[in-house]
Amino acid sequence: VVGQTGRVAAEIPPVAPSLSAAVENTLAAELSARRAELLAVDERLGVVADLLVDFIADGKRLRPEFCWWGWRAGGGRADPADCAPVVRIAAALELIQACALVHDDLIDRSETRRGRPSVHVAVAKSHADAGYAGDSDQHGLAVAVLLGDLALAWADDLFTASAHQLRALDRVQQPWRAMRTEVLAGQLLDVSMGAMATDEPGALAAAMTVNRFKTAAYTVERPLHLGAGLAGAQTEVIDRLRRYGVAIGTAFQLRDDLLGVFGDPTVTGKPAGGDLTEGKRTVLVAQARTGLAGTTALLADLDAGFGSADAGAVAAATAAIAASGAPEELEQRISALVADGLDALAGLPDDAATALHGLAVRATARRR
Amino acid sequence: VVGQTGRVAAEIPPVAPSLSAAVENTLAAELSARRAELLAVDERLGVVADLLVDFIADGKRLRPEFCWWGWRAGGGRADPADCAPVVRIAAALELIQACALVHDDLIDRSETRRGRPSVHVAVAKSHADAGYAGDSDQHGLAVAVLLGDLALAWADDLFTASAHQLRALDRVQQPWRAMRTEVLAGQLLDVSMGAMATDEPGALAAAMTVNRFKTAAYTVERPLHLGAGLAGAQTEVIDRLRRYGVAIGTAFQLRDDLLGVFGDPTVTGKPAGGDLTEGKRTVLVAQARTGLAGTTALLADLDAGFGSADAGAVAAATAAIAASGAPEELEQRISALVADGLDALAGLPDDAATALHGLAVRATARRR
Repeated sequence: VVGQTGRVAAEIPPVAPSLSAAVENTLAAELSARRAELLAVDERLGVVADLLVDFIADGKRLRPEFCWWGWRAGGGRADPADCAPVVRIAAALELIQACALVHDDLIDRSETRRGRPSVHVAVAKSHADAGYAGDSDQHGLAVAVLLGDLALAWADDLFTASAHQLRALDRVQQPWRAMRTEVLAGQLLDVSMGAMATDEPGALAAAMTVNRFKTAAYTVERPLHLGAGLAGAQTEVIDRLRRYGVAIGTAFQLRDDLLGVFGDPTVTGKPAGGDLTEGKRTVLVAQARTGLAGTTALLADLDAGFGSADAGAVAAATAAIAASGAPEELEQRISALVADGLDALAGLPDDAATALHGLAVRATARRR
Repeated sequence: VVGQTGRVAAEIPPVAPSLSAAVENTLAAELSARRAELLAVDERLGVVADLLVDFIADGKRLRPEFCWWGWRAGGGRADPADCAPVVRIAAALELIQACALVHDDLIDRSETRRGRPSVHVAVAKSHADAGYAGDSDQHGLAVAVLLGDLALAWADDLFTASAHQLRALDRVQQPWRAMRTEVLAGQLLDVSMGAMATDEPGALAAAMTVNRFKTAAYTVERPLHLGAGLAGAQTEVIDRLRRYGVAIGTAFQLRDDLLGVFGDPTVTGKPAGGDLTEGKRTVLVAQARTGLAGTTALLADLDAGFGSADAGAVAAATAAIAASGAPEELEQRISALVADGLDALAGLPDDAATALHGLAVRATARRR
């Protein structure tokens, strides 16, 4: 929720809570209508719609919030009658995110998501518990693939209808096209790099590209761009928002990299060194390898703990990263990015600038 | 290619070949532009774009052909200057189909597609051959999921831009929304029924529903509907085309069911009884079970050969289906559906009616 500081809370009306309620209502109405279409095909498909409803209920609504503040920065009014299309497009972002997460969990073989079984795991378990025919894991895979596809198709439907209704397609088609291609390209590059040797030349540059497109463009830059485009913002405003988005989105992921290795498990709710155990090809790890070049023993520790479930090996790899200079390098980069992002807010309407300032702090100074 | 009979070839200009060339050119241009977007993210992604280009090159362009004849039946002119948007939407149907097939092969664990390795298998093999890091099968899965997602997103982009350019979104949004939900719903129902016992009550009705939505709506009815909607066809014309589409699309799949069990391998290029080995829950098999109710020995033969790779067991199951009365039942149903579909063509423009008549025969009387 925006407005965690006294200043923000005092100066702007509590838009975020009403945005949040509007997004929830829109998602509920949209999914209910689409659920009815599935039921019209066959009543057995109600459970599939329910899976998506449950999954989406858990989202943090980060992209809708950026979309909203892009809209406000671009001159969109806070009057609810003016807001229905932007709220619907914000909701469409949550449907895209549902596809991305359900498919990513399949790709990464993640057992859990937000503390609950991931979709393919939950479906496989139901299948096994019921004693159904066939391979339970393959059934979980099938439903997860198709559920993600449905979410992606429905996101497009919601986006297109809303933008068309507002006669804004000419302004927002480009960022919508770009966003979906960018997040998939970033994910494909991430998958490709996962197949390369960890000391592949260019691994650090590739990790930064993944960060740029899989996180920064998808989570901050394009949601802001979409909201501003909908509002008919001037080019200069869009440019400022995008500059903020790239900087803060990139810094957000670098913070994530640091928390994924050095985060306090009692605060993050995730195991210590979790990113190492999962073998994530983060900028932090690539930077640490660069910093440790020539330091054979520490590099060996990093290699031994990378992708390992052994707590001792993970702790040694964590110590190697700490000794590499990479954490300090990332902290400096985060500071520079946040400064650049906040600088880009100059000249934007006060309430949007204040809210985006608060979001930048929340995204980059968090401890979980 | 439309116009296999002397009558058709004599009476209408060779539109289909020029449609085919236009669709190929559109797909090539679109995929080249999107490939450049991937390369702008990272040059390593060129191989991913190439995978999609190669995959799409093999398509039969059946849906574009129905889309085209919907356009012509709805009054759309054959002048190429009038045709760019319908050709682009026809091409978008091939992108949807690429997503559907790449994801279906993953879901069905199909090793081959159109005589070549399926995408996930080809990618896994490249990964293994190159000695890359990680699990090759999981890498194949990851790329196939994301490539299908890209094709689906790009299909939407192409559709929306084309329909918007023609100011036709209000007319074609509904069939486009419906088509994508219907094919995914049909596929989800197919997957759900695959988890049920083969003698599940309602299996025959469910198989018919899968046929109706996964094949008939997706392959014939909605492509016609989209083409006619683009052309601004009158409601009565759209209703006639849809009636034809449901009838011929359903009959097309019933013919597929028969060929999948009784087809001549030297003509179909597929193994004898292939659908049985794959354990496909077709209308034919469900109908055979109904026909064999009470005939314990034959039902046991069917069960033993269903999902079996043993040639003897498959042959016995094939014989059981032949003895069940189901093939005759399906032939009668195909005849009735074709008659109904052709009847629906009355009053449509001559060239479209002639072409659709020819397509109906090709789709339902084929031997492969």
